[in-house]
Amino acid sequence: MTVPHREAGVRLSTANLTELEIRAERVGLNLADGHARQPLTPGQEKIVDRLPELFHTARRAVVPDLDREAQVTYLSVLGQHTALTEAKILSCYSSSVAMEIFARALFAAGLRRVGLIHPTFDNIPDILRGVGLGLRAVPEHVLHRADTAVLPDLDALFITTPNNPTGGVLDEPALAQWAAWCAAHNVVLALDTSFRAFDPRAQYDHYRVLADSGVEWVVIEDTGKVFPSLDLKVGFLAYATGGRLPLWRIYTDILLGVSPMILCLVTALAREGAGGGFAALHQTIARHRAGLHAALPQPTYGRWPDPGNRISVERLALPPGLDAGRVSDDLRARDVHVLPCGNFHWADRAEGAGHLRIALSRPEKDLHAGAEVIRDYLAAASAG
Amino acid sequence: MTVPHREAGVRLSTANLTELEIRAERVGLNLADGHARQPLTPGQEKIVDRLPELFHTARRAVVPDLDREAQVTYLSVLGQHTALTEAKILSCYSSSVAMEIFARALFAAGLRRVGLIHPTFDNIPDILRGVGLGLRAVPEHVLHRADTAVLPDLDALFITTPNNPTGGVLDEPALAQWAAWCAAHNVVLALDTSFRAFDPRAQYDHYRVLADSGVEWVVIEDTGKVFPSLDLKVGFLAYATGGRLPLWRIYTDILLGVSPMILCLVTALAREGAGGGFAALHQTIARHRAGLHAALPQPTYGRWPDPGNRISVERLALPPGLDAGRVSDDLRARDVHVLPCGNFHWADRAEGAGHLRIALSRPEKDLHAGAEVIRDYLAAASAG
Repeated sequence: MTVPHREAGVRLSTANLTELEIRAERVGLNLADGHARQPLTPGQEKIVDRLPELFHTARRAVVPDLDREAQVTYLSVLGQHTALTEAKILSCYSSSVAMEIFARALFAAGLRRVGLIHPTFDNIPDILRGVGLGLRAVPEHVLHRADTAVLPDLDALFITTPNNPTGGVLDEPALAQWAAWCAAHNVVLALDTSFRAFDPRAQYDHYRVLADSGVEWVVIEDTGKVFPSLDLKVGFLAYATGGRLPLWRIYTDILLGVSPMILCLVTALAREGAGGGFAALHQTIARHRAGLHAALPQPTYGRWPDPGNRISVERLALPPGLDAGRVSDDLRARDVHVLPCGNFHWADRAEGAGHLRIALSRPEKDLHAGAEVIRDYLAAASAG
Repeated sequence: MTVPHREAGVRLSTANLTELEIRAERVGLNLADGHARQPLTPGQEKIVDRLPELFHTARRAVVPDLDREAQVTYLSVLGQHTALTEAKILSCYSSSVAMEIFARALFAAGLRRVGLIHPTFDNIPDILRGVGLGLRAVPEHVLHRADTAVLPDLDALFITTPNNPTGGVLDEPALAQWAAWCAAHNVVLALDTSFRAFDPRAQYDHYRVLADSGVEWVVIEDTGKVFPSLDLKVGFLAYATGGRLPLWRIYTDILLGVSPMILCLVTALAREGAGGGFAALHQTIARHRAGLHAALPQPTYGRWPDPGNRISVERLALPPGLDAGRVSDDLRARDVHVLPCGNFHWADRAEGAGHLRIALSRPEKDLHAGAEVIRDYLAAASAG
């Protein structure tokens, strides 16, 4: 078979993070993408055994009821109770499709100056710029400190929380301050909370804060980073009606809805999560993180820049002088795929040149094997 | 439960076809959307029983191999052999996501004057216009007769074949003429062949014609109209590399790939289709079409404007003076959901005011019950 997913002549220097992730799917140890690829828990295995039953349930039910049930179940487990009364929620094929719809709605509404967290996963700036919006980088620490004084004129402010790749969480007081600032300046406040299931600190009721503030808001949620269900997933695009963005119209241009079978699966997985699955997931990710740390010696310049990070990816600081793009190329030659962090720093790639991102949502043996290759590589590099 | 999918204050006169379809999912007899909702065949039932096995197969396999297998199996069954050697094929969540990527790529390449078949399903013009492209309507009969003399200056020409809602098929000589014309005028030729599985006349090897012509081409394929797999589906975005459109880059902005479980399912369903499932589908749709025709008396002004149509929707001509928007509102009040054809005529809604579109990919009893309501309504209308 030929390789279907490889553009002839794409150079690594021009590849985006997703292209690097697609290469990682091909062969070798894939510690690149942030999708959920950890083993199924026993509870999740039982749900997979019931897939034919879920299919037949989905076939008989009324789709909007299944849709609502998936939304209510998933968001309730994660503490987002106010979403259930204050948000209109559109189920999308993925969080990136939700992102595309949001970006197109901003453009259609003439809201074209977007402040975007820096760093963050590069498909967010790529989609925003791709539909014609102008971006201003807002450093993560500015957002976390709610340093509103430094912002330029904006039409929208976009915050990934927990952030990818740092795991940084916008706490409740900071969210409240940004919501008040955005409300006062007529700025749309948008959150991407795709990784919130990993971190209880990101599970305070964001929608209550947003609704109380009077700001025009949009939240993108995602089940795809959480459940290892082979990308059978949903992205939720949540917002309060009555705002400026034509989200519903653009949504209906692109989809009629997601598969009712996937909605049933998400409901089942969220219930299992509430019944202990999420706690088990937190333990798994913590164990994988600790294992990665243990496998790699801690040099004096520091190795792990994000001590508070609880999401399913981890940044590793390289020895001074090593370039992450070069290191990830070398590791790929050794069949280990990780992401260099340059592209996350979408406004200044050099800022990310000293870091790799390693996915933790993997079988433990894969993570261990990858860590050994990285350890040996770094040892040889510092010896050379 | 509240109704999640209803925008407060959306008036029917401003609703697009997908909004009307979403209403139809809620209650009553849904003869509105073109998704595959016919009963599973015995062969398909067996595949559903094997979903856990497919899940575990997908989990163990290399995703790009599953991707290729789904593409090869589906396109081979439908006669598109040259796609397997000449096309790069990107698997998308749906044909509409493929459409969004294609539209964005046209815009990014500065190819902004698009000739589009008229009529066709309204999300195609809505997506093209939504990303900023300019449209020129090209009547279906002009395309089918390959009347190249009448076209204005264009950067791209988009043809739905078989067309929705008419079922009209672009035959091989006409495709060859358009491909030659587009090649000579440096115009991108794009086809949406989502309904081709219903009509053997749309299964000649389109990719051979395209590849032989030297034209820059894009084809959108879709499994979602064909298999009643609860919208577990794939849209394929196929093209020859080396052209002007940055399809791969925009694809990777929006997705890493589709679920490997869905790829396994599509492969299994396509194999079953090759082994008799497609022939059975053709018989089912033909029987449903004949049943609809038999249930509704044939007036002298004619009832069925598309005698050659073999796809899973059928147009019905209303008595002179009746407006399709009004009729579909009245039928909705009687719990029967069909689509008025005005929106299909995206450049001149009045042209479609005399037609309804009725979905045939439904359980036979639903279609029969719906036909009876429509029959009684029309009888009362002509008596009144």
